[in-house]
Amino acid sequence: MSLTSPERSDLEVDEVDVLIVGAGPAGLMMANWMSRWGVRTRIVDKRGTKIYNGQADGLQCRTLEIFDSFDFAHRVWRESNHMLEICLWNPPEDMDPANPSIVRSDRIPDTIPGLSRFTEVVLHQGRIERFFLDSIKENSIRTSCNGTGLAGEIQVERGVLPISFSFDESLAEDNAAYPIQVRLRHLTEEESTPAHKATSNNGQAVQNGLFRSNLAADDTQDLIRQSGVLGAKAGREEIVKARYMLGADGAHSWVRQQLGFKLEGDSTDYIWGVMDVIPITDFPDIRMRCAVHSESSGSVMIIPRENKLVRLYIQLTTTNTASGQKVDRSSLTPEAIIASAQKIMRPYSITYKYLDWWTAYQIGQRVGDKFSLNERVFLAGDAVHTHSPKAGQGMNVSMQDAYNLGWKIAGCLKGRWDRSVLKTYQSERRRIAQDLISFDHRFSRLFSGRPAKNAMDKEGVNMEVFKKAFEEAHMFTTAIGIDYGASLIVAKEGSAEKQGDGTDVIGDASTRVFSKQDRAKDIKVGMRMPSLKVLNQSDARPWHFQELLKSNGTWRVVIFAGDIRNADNKARLDVLGQKLASAESFLNRYTPANEKYDSVFELLAVHSAPRREITIFDFPEPFRPWSDQDGWDYWKIFVDDESYHEGHGQAYKNYGVDPSIGAAVILRPDQYVSWVGDFDDYAAMDSFFSGFMLVQSPSHIPTTQRGQAKAFSDNKQPLFLLEQKLTYMNGSKNGVTAMQQGISVVNGAL
Amino acid sequence: MSLTSPERSDLEVDEVDVLIVGAGPAGLMMANWMSRWGVRTRIVDKRGTKIYNGQADGLQCRTLEIFDSFDFAHRVWRESNHMLEICLWNPPEDMDPANPSIVRSDRIPDTIPGLSRFTEVVLHQGRIERFFLDSIKENSIRTSCNGTGLAGEIQVERGVLPISFSFDESLAEDNAAYPIQVRLRHLTEEESTPAHKATSNNGQAVQNGLFRSNLAADDTQDLIRQSGVLGAKAGREEIVKARYMLGADGAHSWVRQQLGFKLEGDSTDYIWGVMDVIPITDFPDIRMRCAVHSESSGSVMIIPRENKLVRLYIQLTTTNTASGQKVDRSSLTPEAIIASAQKIMRPYSITYKYLDWWTAYQIGQRVGDKFSLNERVFLAGDAVHTHSPKAGQGMNVSMQDAYNLGWKIAGCLKGRWDRSVLKTYQSERRRIAQDLISFDHRFSRLFSGRPAKNAMDKEGVNMEVFKKAFEEAHMFTTAIGIDYGASLIVAKEGSAEKQGDGTDVIGDASTRVFSKQDRAKDIKVGMRMPSLKVLNQSDARPWHFQELLKSNGTWRVVIFAGDIRNADNKARLDVLGQKLASAESFLNRYTPANEKYDSVFELLAVHSAPRREITIFDFPEPFRPWSDQDGWDYWKIFVDDESYHEGHGQAYKNYGVDPSIGAAVILRPDQYVSWVGDFDDYAAMDSFFSGFMLVQSPSHIPTTQRGQAKAFSDNKQPLFLLEQKLTYMNGSKNGVTAMQQGISVVNGAL
Repeated sequence: MSLTSPERSDLEVDEVDVLIVGAGPAGLMMANWMSRWGVRTRIVDKRGTKIYNGQADGLQCRTLEIFDSFDFAHRVWRESNHMLEICLWNPPEDMDPANPSIVRSDRIPDTIPGLSRFTEVVLHQGRIERFFLDSIKENSIRTSCNGTGLAGEIQVERGVLPISFSFDESLAEDNAAYPIQVRLRHLTEEESTPAHKATSNNGQAVQNGLFRSNLAADDTQDLIRQSGVLGAKAGREEIVKARYMLGADGAHSWVRQQLGFKLEGDSTDYIWGVMDVIPITDFPDIRMRCAVHSESSGSVMIIPRENKLVRLYIQLTTTNTASGQKVDRSSLTPEAIIASAQKIMRPYSITYKYLDWWTAYQIGQRVGDKFSLNERVFLAGDAVHTHSPKAGQGMNVSMQDAYNLGWKIAGCLKGRWDRSVLKTYQSERRRIAQDLISFDHRFSRLFSGRPAKNAMDKEGVNMEVFKKAFEEAHMFTTAIGIDYGASLIVAKEGSAEKQGDGTDVIGDASTRVFSKQDRAKDIKVGMRMPSLKVLNQSDARPWHFQELLKSNGTWRVVIFAGDIRNADNKARLDVLGQKLASAESFLNRYTPANEKYDSVFELLAVHSAPRREITIFDFPEPFRPWSDQDGWDYWKIFVDDESYHEGHGQAYKNYGVDPSIGAAVILRPDQYVSWVGDFDDYAAMDSFFSGFMLVQSPSHIPTTQRGQAKAFSDNKQPLFLLEQKLTYMNGSKNGVTAMQQGISVVNGAL
Repeated sequence: MSLTSPERSDLEVDEVDVLIVGAGPAGLMMANWMSRWGVRTRIVDKRGTKIYNGQADGLQCRTLEIFDSFDFAHRVWRESNHMLEICLWNPPEDMDPANPSIVRSDRIPDTIPGLSRFTEVVLHQGRIERFFLDSIKENSIRTSCNGTGLAGEIQVERGVLPISFSFDESLAEDNAAYPIQVRLRHLTEEESTPAHKATSNNGQAVQNGLFRSNLAADDTQDLIRQSGVLGAKAGREEIVKARYMLGADGAHSWVRQQLGFKLEGDSTDYIWGVMDVIPITDFPDIRMRCAVHSESSGSVMIIPRENKLVRLYIQLTTTNTASGQKVDRSSLTPEAIIASAQKIMRPYSITYKYLDWWTAYQIGQRVGDKFSLNERVFLAGDAVHTHSPKAGQGMNVSMQDAYNLGWKIAGCLKGRWDRSVLKTYQSERRRIAQDLISFDHRFSRLFSGRPAKNAMDKEGVNMEVFKKAFEEAHMFTTAIGIDYGASLIVAKEGSAEKQGDGTDVIGDASTRVFSKQDRAKDIKVGMRMPSLKVLNQSDARPWHFQELLKSNGTWRVVIFAGDIRNADNKARLDVLGQKLASAESFLNRYTPANEKYDSVFELLAVHSAPRREITIFDFPEPFRPWSDQDGWDYWKIFVDDESYHEGHGQAYKNYGVDPSIGAAVILRPDQYVSWVGDFDDYAAMDSFFSGFMLVQSPSHIPTTQRGQAKAFSDNKQPLFLLEQKLTYMNGSKNGVTAMQQGISVVNGAL
């Protein structure tokens, strides 16, 4: 499994926990998670420079929710263009074919109201990558500042090419081992700068993205050959040994090639041009997202962007890939693309003086056959799925892959939970990729086809069908509808294989628990926790519930205790408190001896008694953890009541929780719902966590697990590093600041 | 008027437009304005370091609105603690005197709902100053980057002491002249570091603020003497010649002393201690703002802060200033202060392990007799008003002074308007200072007094009276209630002298216009423009109206044209459009020949027809300014309609505008309302601006103004600098970004 032996004895060897290949959105999301956990990480990219404009741009609701959990959604929200409405433009029914024209046939909201605190926004990829880089820097510096210096700052290393790979399968199940070896070559600046010329347009030099387009050949082999030829002039080489590895290196993924995994699927016949311009036009909806179908000249999708820019996706021609015919790349020019747009948008005029970026691509629809090698080397993003860009999915799904994976790996590295959790990555994300391609098949055809002339025209696209498809796809495209299948970390009924991609992810069936979904009808097991406004009991401040769920690696147990003035509710709460406080409780059993349990589990309460009749002292101590230095913790108990300035979240009603019965919810570190049940069903909670968590306190470790626990305690990465890190993030040191970094955007939305 | 002659011929001479003495919040606000206008500015402070903790902390609604107009309110909003509720604690009626205790007697909202998009928040002064410094840097760099390099980056020069001042009164009315000369001495680090020792507490070194307290003597003379003695070791000296100058140098203001102006008023007998701690307590409302009155041990005000801190204001003792008795400063210690709090808060316990900062002060209530010398040298902030800190007014009123002044001076410097505008600074802000002191007299007594024992106890403070005072003071303390009097820039009826501080600010009575307040009943002339949500016509995005009113120096004319489907409204709008478009219109007359009018006036429209039935092409061209480079401007026309995700602002209803009649509103560059009238009353608008604006195009200049206009054209500061600057800010280059920097906080609030 290696191009050349990586065992050259003269090379320096570096050991890391995680090696990330590729510093696009998926790789950066992974590095971002690692920065939160203080994991020794290297991230390399063969390109010498980051992206400054163009590329992907649409950000879906769920992506913004994730960004908010990392405290930088507000930067996107402020800089981006917000898309509120989609306008559909089509030939009028009574059109004179000699005078082609279009009319606005319908309007639909771009994001269904109530779906999320956020709406879809547009901002170019270079800015997104900047926010990741800032976030990674800020957080890995904090880790270093905590005094250990072990993890250090994670910095993207650009112009670094992986040139060989080997994997020792015998070490695969030894979590502490380094089964992965990769030889890296540091390219010179000349080698790592892509050989694309800026296009000249109106006298400006304009960046084009053809070198990254799927119409361009993979240049990795060229880079390797070239840097070999350059010989001594090329930079140094080194060996990196890694415990885990992520290939987030795009559609031509070098990592995927090393693993011998395949992309399965086909290319379509459609070729599209894309350009970002400041439009000069009399088209009245140029600042709306528009789908424009012409009678016979193809279609345009209009995506209004930041800084007065508008992106135009324009259907150029078709190519018969079945016959192997290749596109004539010389015909792909900005002039040709805008000329197509002008034809499609008649009678409106559209031109530009400022062109920011352009590219062209052919739609391919493929999914990787496997997403991981022994749950040690993983693939994410374009490396395992490619599809049409027009539903704004690519960058979002890629980042969400890495968001799903990061915490799972980090928790294994830290000895928090068993490696069996890692199988859920392929089960959950490959299934999403499969769903994405099915969606894309349908959506691309609808968008690329010509409009139906009338009800009898079966080859044309019926505009009612098109509108319906747009609307129905919404839960999927926003990623709010994602519903992960049953597994050892998603406690629901049914076949894990059928609900996922076929992988067996139930683990030890003896600890399997099932949810009582009816305790919280609208907190769906397998889906992300919806957000409603609740008030902090101590200071009456309203928070969107999601704002409390920062991505800091903790599991969360949320207790909806109902109206605790009611003696029954209060008694059940007190009994729960006693069980949680016991030395044998899961809170204590799975927390390292020198840490506080809230570095592993965050216990949150939401009650429904009137705020003014309750204080935090009505709750058992585990809900307001004591610190000798700082006194009580005032940021864990919340109430479903009217706020002074932001209305009433009606959390019980909208979450579907009966205040007289209550509910408990277990949330994964990525905000997905693991389990719903009775709020005092301590036994189910304990059983759920015992399915994958590793006992930390030696006296609690069953004989069968002791070897594994020893492996962790031998780990060079000391646990106190994690403790300091998470203490900080959870707010024991800086509680208010951490919580105040959320932003409230749309009131009352789910 | 000078300590020593500044005319030493061996000193370097620097010429600036504005010299600011003092880099606290008032000085920084001034520098911030100047950075927006590309004005050559220096800002000096005698202290060698900035503030890192403690000091003022409360930020009122209006201050946050102002910060938002400068694009950094979101930083405050995220980091600060939000105070939502005030709890009043008092001895119970049936208290046993042998067992002193307190009970919660009432709760009131800290900010009246609906008053502003923001609520009161708390964040220490050091962070506020940091946001100003970042904002000044970012904006003055932008100015420099525009290629002129003339204004350059404004940087605070610390450890720089002004040591002499002279003023040439004969040049006072020559706007282009430099009548001010100040000699500056650059202190060594040793000299500029205040000689306060950190207090030791629980083994920590703790900053105390006594050296800045009014209980400490002024150290300016010490600094001057000391640096003189140090002789050659002291840093260099220089002369700065300035066109305008601001003294924002605190209660002991050196600038005020040079001018010979007086602070009028008295000290009170009350001594208060202040401390910032992380409290360890069983008091249930420690995260609420609380006013705690004990039976006979004095009172505590609790202000919960960021980073788990809580500020305690504690009444310590009284001192008889009338008899000249001085406070024993050795009795002022953190131990003494917390001991007082413990006594007052019985039976609850309160202590701490972490102390962040502490100080003590005596309340003085004084106002400056004059706020400016010939409208050339101005005073702001503590230099002209001192009072109790407990209503959270000091930092806010100081910043608002400079916010009121900055644009007025910058516009004069740029030749936009006449110097007569400058008189309104004293008229408006001295009146506010006077009102503040009257308010403070009443509020301090209520807060410092002991609670009334019963209805017969006339010496004690009745708690109903206290609560009422709190509530009534609200419009004043939030600064939302500020109502500037009639002047040449506030078109309302009545006596300018009576509505202000006695200064004559009407100017040329022949151009005076009056408002028709009933056209927009709730957009009050003299008050700040309230904020409601409106939608951008072009992209359906909701904006809080204030978000559109960035502090970039433009005047704004807002046309509420009503339902423009109505033929009458449409006809009136079209006639207005023709008048505005004419070469003789005020838009064109007062705009320099090489600029676009939207660098001086921004024309905004808010209509009330259904959004879906209108496009921007239904509006005359002046409402969508054309650019050959960028096409139409899509960010000037708004609609009062339902949004998809943020409700309906009901702007017409809540502004009190009849859709069939409409209204026009002129807004000053600081968001205050100048005039309200008929939306097509072009004549009144023209007359209003002719009262103080200076004709820019030579052919329009009346003979009487030509000399003045020439003075501006001789100015070293070319107008194109301003043009580039404002073009950028107004968004002709970056429209969406500039507009997107606003934040939406509380839905539907005014």
